[in-house]
Amino acid sequence: MTHVSISTGRQVQAVLFDTFGTVVDWRSGVAREVAAFAARHALLGFDAVRFADAWRGRYEPSMDRVRTGDRAFVPLDQLHRENLLATMIEFDVNPTEYEDELDELNGVWERLDPWGDSVAGLTDLSRAVIIGPLSNANLALLVRMARRAGLPWSVIIGSDVTRAYKPNVEAYHGAAHLLRLDPGEVMLAAAHNMDLAAAQGAGLATAFISRPTELGPGQTKDLLPQGNWDLVCDSIPALSRHFTES
Amino acid sequence: MTHVSISTGRQVQAVLFDTFGTVVDWRSGVAREVAAFAARHALLGFDAVRFADAWRGRYEPSMDRVRTGDRAFVPLDQLHRENLLATMIEFDVNPTEYEDELDELNGVWERLDPWGDSVAGLTDLSRAVIIGPLSNANLALLVRMARRAGLPWSVIIGSDVTRAYKPNVEAYHGAAHLLRLDPGEVMLAAAHNMDLAAAQGAGLATAFISRPTELGPGQTKDLLPQGNWDLVCDSIPALSRHFTES
Repeated sequence: MTHVSISTGRQVQAVLFDTFGTVVDWRSGVAREVAAFAARHALLGFDAVRFADAWRGRYEPSMDRVRTGDRAFVPLDQLHRENLLATMIEFDVNPTEYEDELDELNGVWERLDPWGDSVAGLTDLSRAVIIGPLSNANLALLVRMARRAGLPWSVIIGSDVTRAYKPNVEAYHGAAHLLRLDPGEVMLAAAHNMDLAAAQGAGLATAFISRPTELGPGQTKDLLPQGNWDLVCDSIPALSRHFTES
Repeated sequence: MTHVSISTGRQVQAVLFDTFGTVVDWRSGVAREVAAFAARHALLGFDAVRFADAWRGRYEPSMDRVRTGDRAFVPLDQLHRENLLATMIEFDVNPTEYEDELDELNGVWERLDPWGDSVAGLTDLSRAVIIGPLSNANLALLVRMARRAGLPWSVIIGSDVTRAYKPNVEAYHGAAHLLRLDPGEVMLAAAHNMDLAAAQGAGLATAFISRPTELGPGQTKDLLPQGNWDLVCDSIPALSRHFTES
């Protein structure tokens, strides 16, 4: 097997992936289940895609309190559920009326479909290197997502294992340490420039994977690489070819 | 898919496996590499199988100090290396003469072959439930073992993730907690009665898998189930059939 020449000067032994947006399509998946929920309860004039964006919009702010140490670490499942309640209230839906359906709806984050190229690309790449998610999701969510979507991870290190949310440096170093690798032997693959910048700052190799429709047809963010990343690819198979072809 | 009726009164969602001895054959694998090491260095009259047994014999005592809190948690890689040095001295081999080969030799624990039935049985079982190791090995060792041996784990939770060594209750509860499962929804599969007794005490379901040659042709221990285990099987495919056949 061949290996990529990268800025860290080390051979990449593991490629870890941002998950929401990079490997799976969260926006369509969340909107689909929210639309079904709204239809079931005859919620009129309810925009499920806008709801998905609003729910996801609370993602970064909710982790920020944990990142700064303002709040003790809690798994992403719990933040997702708190954010679901707040989003429902924002959309004039009373969560207490649907109490016994909220856990199920909150589980949508483990029922997201992979992008069309993800499974083939990961399967191919897994022959050359260790592959796994490096996500802010917790282990229980990631293992259920992987089984449903057929993601052939070598290993799953949840954020509740390292107890750190990206882009805090502990998230990147904690994963490398558990794999008994130096940060420079690990590559982060992500569709988000901010995540890659933090990974590079932590000493990891970096691969940008463009996902120009993650945020819908009007996406303006993360369309192009905005850093000196080791690899720039338009799919996971394209990334994989750097490791499997000489 | 069907589910096994078990003592915990819960549906089993995950089957976790003891690894050394239950899934892989540590004795033959260690002896093989030790024999190659001895031959390379012309160590005369060296009994590699006896060396493997002696190295493994230091396994439980070395973890005991961590289990009792007498020593802070260290990953199994480190205990294996300390035990390798002690075993070499016991066999009149001076470890300092081979310093630059010790890490490689210590890595033999990730180069163990699975028992002949393991991969087929795990592959089949993984269609019905979450599967993973519940081993005293650390994550880095387990991921390399899995890639080499083709073990199709859904997830790998190393002892360095829960920071607990079996049979301490935290090892079993920590794994269940990370999987977002109640202990009664998790089954431990193991060839060792002591491990199963501790798992049952922690509220897990239990499956005994007989491995009558783990300790060689003269094995006298763990030949038979010595507890009221939920399942008693002579192979991993036999265990799997309880989950995949109605």
